[in-house]
This record gives sequence, structure tokens and C-alpha cells, in this order.
Amino acid sequence: MEQAFTELKERLGKLTDLRRAEGVLVWDMTVFMPPGGGPTRAAQLATLHEITHEYEIDESFGELFEKLEPYAASLPPDSEDACLIRVAQRDWSKARRVPTELATEFALAQAQSYDAWVRARENSDFASFRPWLERMLDLRLRYVECFAPYDDPYDVLLDDFEPGMKTDEIRAVFAVLEPELVSLVEAHATDEKDDFMSGPFPIASQEALSRELIGRFGATWDQFRLDTTVHPFEVTFGLGDIRLTTRYREDDLISLFTAMHECGHGLYEWGVNPSFERTPLCSGCSAALHESQSRLWENVVGRSLPFWRWFHPRLQETFPEKLGGVPLESLHRAVNRTRRSFIRVDADETSYGLHVILRFDLEQRLISGELAVEDLPDAWNARFEELLGIPVPNDQLGVLQDAHWSGGSFGYFPTYLLGTVLSVQIWEKARAAIPDVDEQIERGDFHQLHMWLRENIYALGRKFTPAETIERVVGGPIDPEPYLRYLRDKLETSALV
Amino acid sequence: MEQAFTELKERLGKLTDLRRAEGVLVWDMTVFMPPGGGPTRAAQLATLHEITHEYEIDESFGELFEKLEPYAASLPPDSEDACLIRVAQRDWSKARRVPTELATEFALAQAQSYDAWVRARENSDFASFRPWLERMLDLRLRYVECFAPYDDPYDVLLDDFEPGMKTDEIRAVFAVLEPELVSLVEAHATDEKDDFMSGPFPIASQEALSRELIGRFGATWDQFRLDTTVHPFEVTFGLGDIRLTTRYREDDLISLFTAMHECGHGLYEWGVNPSFERTPLCSGCSAALHESQSRLWENVVGRSLPFWRWFHPRLQETFPEKLGGVPLESLHRAVNRTRRSFIRVDADETSYGLHVILRFDLEQRLISGELAVEDLPDAWNARFEELLGIPVPNDQLGVLQDAHWSGGSFGYFPTYLLGTVLSVQIWEKARAAIPDVDEQIERGDFHQLHMWLRENIYALGRKFTPAETIERVVGGPIDPEPYLRYLRDKLETSALV
Repeated sequence: MEQAFTELKERLGKLTDLRRAEGVLVWDMTVFMPPGGGPTRAAQLATLHEITHEYEIDESFGELFEKLEPYAASLPPDSEDACLIRVAQRDWSKARRVPTELATEFALAQAQSYDAWVRARENSDFASFRPWLERMLDLRLRYVECFAPYDDPYDVLLDDFEPGMKTDEIRAVFAVLEPELVSLVEAHATDEKDDFMSGPFPIASQEALSRELIGRFGATWDQFRLDTTVHPFEVTFGLGDIRLTTRYREDDLISLFTAMHECGHGLYEWGVNPSFERTPLCSGCSAALHESQSRLWENVVGRSLPFWRWFHPRLQETFPEKLGGVPLESLHRAVNRTRRSFIRVDADETSYGLHVILRFDLEQRLISGELAVEDLPDAWNARFEELLGIPVPNDQLGVLQDAHWSGGSFGYFPTYLLGTVLSVQIWEKARAAIPDVDEQIERGDFHQLHMWLRENIYALGRKFTPAETIERVVGGPIDPEPYLRYLRDKLETSALV
Repeated sequence: MEQAFTELKERLGKLTDLRRAEGVLVWDMTVFMPPGGGPTRAAQLATLHEITHEYEIDESFGELFEKLEPYAASLPPDSEDACLIRVAQRDWSKARRVPTELATEFALAQAQSYDAWVRARENSDFASFRPWLERMLDLRLRYVECFAPYDDPYDVLLDDFEPGMKTDEIRAVFAVLEPELVSLVEAHATDEKDDFMSGPFPIASQEALSRELIGRFGATWDQFRLDTTVHPFEVTFGLGDIRLTTRYREDDLISLFTAMHECGHGLYEWGVNPSFERTPLCSGCSAALHESQSRLWENVVGRSLPFWRWFHPRLQETFPEKLGGVPLESLHRAVNRTRRSFIRVDADETSYGLHVILRFDLEQRLISGELAVEDLPDAWNARFEELLGIPVPNDQLGVLQDAHWSGGSFGYFPTYLLGTVLSVQIWEKARAAIPDVDEQIERGDFHQLHMWLRENIYALGRKFTPAETIERVVGGPIDPEPYLRYLRDKLETSALV
């Protein structure tokens, strides 16, 4: 039995290695690769994915799981070994549903499609991206069929990001949020300019500040990197090798929020129990839990008044000409303005949810076949105006803005809003546990908050299901009320009025 | 038959993908990876290498080669398909001699040992590196045994870098070179300082100049990258994805020569016939041929008077304070001084060979068992003083300076000198073909030289054996005489006197 378990862990270690190797190739592709590398990189990713998938679905895993059944049954269900076997077996059963040919075709198309998306976005040219999007959608629909029978095809895709969650659960949460967010935006959206926020802010200084923030939050540069890319993301190559990516624009300070956001993802992955290294338990639990952490650090912390009490002088020192004379209240208000704007990742905390609801709606209609890819830009623009009240001027500011669909990641978007909702639920728990957390943040001291999150969420990795993990941390399911309270409080009272 | 050939090419394509994926992981490890990534990266490389080796030695390749025998026999022996089958079959037969376990252990140890070497070199601490070097040597000796019987164990290692060449051939060439180089160094070595060469030269300017040189030589940045690392190298991830690495020191301009050197490797790989992409023909032919190109661009071109006639004003513009008043002759003399110095990669063209001969001697003695790793530093220091006439002050400037042994690359070093010798033979041919090449270089125009090299060497890739390729290009075997003539001419006449 012990030997079978050792063998399982060894095989799972190698599977983790292969997955991370794929990650290195994708990271390099999006961060450093010269454009000429596109075709060969796509081939490399397809081959590596084929080999990894073959390795993953190998029957020898099944034999090991069978052998280990009595061992697993003999363990406390929440013990590390029992959880590892359960998670690994679930992953294996899912992977086996998918033929290697389809998995490989998908990996190849993903790399090629990313390239097509980058160019289409640059030129606001949906037509050139359309065949790729059709291809990705078709490949995802074939993937969905591997899991028939299902209640809802969207459930299948969602399960890859939010294991165990059903589309209906999201619909219920979003049904509460949509009218509330629409009316909050209506009540609070402003066109007022904050001229001091339009730079120019030299990029080298933005980068130095980003690094300072990430370091303050607790990351150490012997185990982290920060690089630039088109669409920022975080990826983990090992518990001691966390890669953050960001982007800079001279004419605003959004990069500081991007840095805090990706840092949140990185801290989560970095904080997983070290004994899970090179096992399937060694990562964040689900996309929503991941987003709860990126959004917590970016917004709940990074746009809070205590944070700005600390950060305001640092920012003024860095950009004395532009910001030297701008008082704390003005800066804090500027980074919390509710605005009707086009780009999701630049959106304020209130309108953000509407950007996500838009994508969730469209995705469901694409997956159900109700909406054709060719009609997607029109559908985007119509629904966008309905939700946000402004017309979309072009596809670069509309349907082409996000990388996700180019990678076939249908089902990811709703987790951004679920995570946002969850971030406030988690924040309330953290705040109850650390009564003087505001004072600590005002001093630029994030250590105790980081440690609380690490202990209560990060360390668990994928040991429990997302629902179990959420239950453990906040004592119940995802609940939109605390988030709505938080928004109302922020918009209707205190320094923002 | 056609189907079998298609299948072979497909499998070889995937093998190339896997090898290049390993390359990406190694490149990242040495260029960007934070130190905390060491242990997981080593595991990733070991796993990937294991999978690649298993894929490479699979019996299905043997079946395909068997099926394809009549096809191969029906082709002109120098046709692309015949060469591809021959080269692939040779690679396969070699790989099959090596058990996967040994190959995997080697890959794991390589990554770990690199880490140990970087630290040991920093601290000039051979003792901490010794167990790793012993491990690498032991692993290489086990590798050698896979190829028993052999005439000379060193032949086995050499064959990985210089297929088909025997150690005796090198001994014969080096036996001619050693006394000649020793006496040239004795006659011409100087301690004279060129104070203007000691900087400081801001690194950003050195980088800009490096990029300018690489661009001038013909590389385009949509298909190349230049990054910094501890021990510069070039690696290819695709015919459109060439990665050069370099390093900078504020107190000298060696980085310009490093850039030209690595650019030479890159141009070689970049110039391979595009129809060889994703096959085993798609790379330089051998280490010596590769070095002939790096050394040709670095030295034969990059230290020549015509080059400096063009480059002198560019360098003066870049560093007006330090070099504005230094005449062409002084600069050209400064970059061609013969000096007794410690670091191989910084050595002048004359003493360089002695650094290589030292390593070749020591490697043979390590491999034959005549010399123990623990006695290596003393042996290094004794032989170094014999060849170069100065005592080695510490191991950082001695036995720890190169990365090669940390990677188990015994057998590589002699190819540096063989390549240097060959670079002059090739240069003589190029010069005969382009009579006004000096005038072109004086104008900063390297196009015709680049195209001649591409057509006559680069395009061939691994299509022919190294010996055949050399014969095709220079009309005979490796011959030290042109190189010695070139050195004597440079040292004893013209602008250097």
C-alpha cells in the first residue's frame, strides 16, 4: 500500500512537472517570445500537451487508485493523503473523458489563436479573429460533449474553473447583483475628470512602485518575478517560483492596481502548504477563490482609505510634479470614482460586475448555440449599452478587449465577479480576527492580514472542494449581500461623498 | 512508403518540440528564474528529459527506419530525405544505448549542479562544488560505458559535440598549435595598460551597441532576443526564435565581443534551410562548426582593422568622454593585445588556444581516471602556469570560471579551438569569394559575407557530417596553418606593431 502511494505521488509529481513546463512555454510566449517564434511555439505546446494528456490519462493511475481504495477508506477524510487521492482521482476521471486528439488540437489552436487575437485587438479587427473564435468555440463544444449527459452545457465548462459549481447558482447570485449594480452605477457614475490622474507617469517609476507594493504585501524577490505582457496574469512554476505579469501606460496609474491584483494571485499560490509541492493539491482551490484574493488585495485593501493614508505620501514623493499638491481625499476619490467605461480591467468596483455579467450572458448564449460568433460584436454592443448605458465605439474597446476567449476559456469570466463578492465576505472575517487591521494598513503593515489569509485560505490549496473551502473560511456559501453593503457604504458615506 | 516517411517526420517533429521545450526551461533557468525556482525546475527538467528520452528511443522509430530502408537506398545519398533518414537513424541508435534512468538522472543532476556552480563561482569555493563535479563526472563515465567497446573513452564524449571525430585528431592539431601559441604569447604578451579601456562604460550604452552590432550583422529583432546571464550562450527554439544571451561589466567592453560571438551562433542556426524546420537537420552541424561562426564574427571580423575603421567613430560617439580622443590605431591595438590572463572568454586570439588546450588536457585525465576531481584545482593551476606563465590567484579565476563541467559537458572545450582554427580557413574562402569584403566591412556592410556564410555553411544544417561539411566549405580537413599564419600576420605586421 505504501509502495502504491509512493508510486502515485511520484507519477503526480511528474504530471505537475509537465504541466508547469507547459506553463513556462506559455509564459515565455506571452512575455518574451519574439513574434517569429509563434508557429514553432504552437507546435511545442501541442506536443507537450499531447504527451502530458497521455501521461495523465494512463491506465496505471486507475490501477493505483484501485489499489489505494482501502488505504483511502481507512484515513480521516480530511487528512492530506485522503484529500490527495480524492483530488487526483477526480482530475484523472475528468481527463480520461477527453480524447488526446481533442486535447492536443485544443492546445495547438490555443497558441495560434492567441497570436491572432493579439493582432486583431491591436487593429480592432474582429473579422480577422472571427474564424479563430469559431474554432475555439467549436473545440469547446466538442469538449462539452465528452461530459454528456449534463444538465447545462455551461456547467461542464464552469467545472474546470469552479469545480462542483452549477451555472444556476451563478445565475441566482448575478440576478441579485445586476439590478443593484445598475442602479448604483446610475446613482453614482460621474464624468468628472481628475486631471492629475492622467500623467504622464514615467513607466520606470510605476514599475518601482509596483515592486514596492508587491514587496510590502509580503512577496520576496528571490521567489517572485514581475514582467510585462499584453494581458496580465500570474503563473506558478513552483512554490518558490511565482511569476507575476503586468502592463504600464504612461497616462494613468492603473498599473498599481494590476500589480496588487496579480500579487494577490501570487501570494495565494505561494502560501500553499509546502508539503503539497508537486502534487495536484499545490495550487489555488478554484478561480473564484483565486479572484477573491486578487480582488481583495487590489480593491478591498488597495482602494481603501487606510491604504491611501499610507500610500498617499509615497505616491506624492514619486510623482511630485503631478501629485505633490493633490490632497489625500482627492486621490482616494479619484481611484474610487464610479464611471461608465469600456474596459473591464480598468473598471471601478461598482461597474466591474456589470462587465462580468455581460460576458457571462454572452458566453451562455454562445455555448447554447443561441448566438453565432458572427453576431457576437452586435450582441456585445447591445447588451453593453443596456447594462452600462454607453455605446461601444469599436471592438478594441468592446468584444476584443480580453484574451480569455482566444484561449477557449469560456466559463472563466463569472468567477471574477464571484471572487469579488467573496473577497468582501473574506475581508469581513479577516477584519473580525484582526480588529486593528485598518491601523496596520495605515502604517503600511500588511503582515498580519497576509498571515491570516495564508493560514485560513492559502495553505489549504486544493485540499478541499471550493464549496468546502468557502464554507470553512466564511461559514456559508457565496453571498452577494456583504459586497453590496460594502459598495453602498463606500459610495454613499465617508470620504467619497 | 510515403506514409512511413510522413510518420517519421511527424515523430521527429514532436521530438524536436520536446527538445526545444527543454531548451526553453533551461534558458529561463539561467536567464530569468528566481533562485527559489531551482528545486522545482530541476524536477521539471528531469521529468521532461525522461519523457523525451523515452519518446526518442521508442521501438516505433526502429520499425520506421526498417520500412524506409528501400526508400532511403533509392534516393541520391545527398538528397534531403536520405540525409534526414541517415541523421535520424544515427541519433536514434546512439540514444538507444543510454538507459532512460541514466539520462534522467543526468538531466536532474545537471540542473542541480548548475545551481551549485553559480554559487561556488561567486564565492570562489571549489570545495562546495567538488561533490557535484564528482557526480557529473561519474554520470558521464557511466554514459561512456553505454558505448563500450571504444578506442578512447574521450571519443565517446567528443562524439556528442563533434560527431565522427576522434580524440587523436584533436591531439594532432593541438600538438602543432601548443608550441607555436606558447612562443607567440612569449614574444608578444604585454602588460601595457590601455587606461581608456577600463571604463566606466554605462551598461545601457553597451547594450544599445550590442544590439546595433547584432542588427548590422543581419539579425532581425522580430526573430531574435538578447538577454543577460551568468555564462552567455545561444539557444534556438525555432527558425524564427533565436535567443542570444550576454553579460556586461562597467569596467570593460568585452560585452561587444560576447554579443558578436553569440550573434555568430545565432546567425548560423537562423540560416538553416527552412525546409529542415522541426527535423533533426535543423541546427548547426557540430560544435566546432558552430564555434567557427561565433569566433569568425567575434574575432576575424570583430577585431579586424576594417571593422574598427567602421566601428571606431560609433564607439567614440557612444562614449565621448572616455574614447573621444583615442585614435583608431590605439583602439584597434587595445582590442588585439596579447596578454597573459586568467579568463578564457576574455582572452585575446593568441592566448585563447592555450586556455582551451589546458581544459582538453585536464578533461582527458579526468575521464581516463588519471586525475581525481579533488586534485583538479592544483592540476589546473600547475598546467595553467606552464602554458601561460602566470600563477592562478584563486579558483574563481581558475577552475571555477566555466559553466561547462557543471553541466557534464566534458568534450566540448576542444571544439572552441577547432572552431577558431576553422574560422580562419573559412574566412580565407569567403575572402576569395568576395574580393572587396574588407571594403564592405569598412562601410559597416556585412550583408554579402553573411549571405556567403549562409549559403555555404548555415543552410546545410546537419545534412552532412561535420567532416563532409568542412570538406565542402574549405576543401580539406581542419588545418592549423592558416590560423597560425593569421596570428603571425596580425601580431608581427601592420597596425599592431
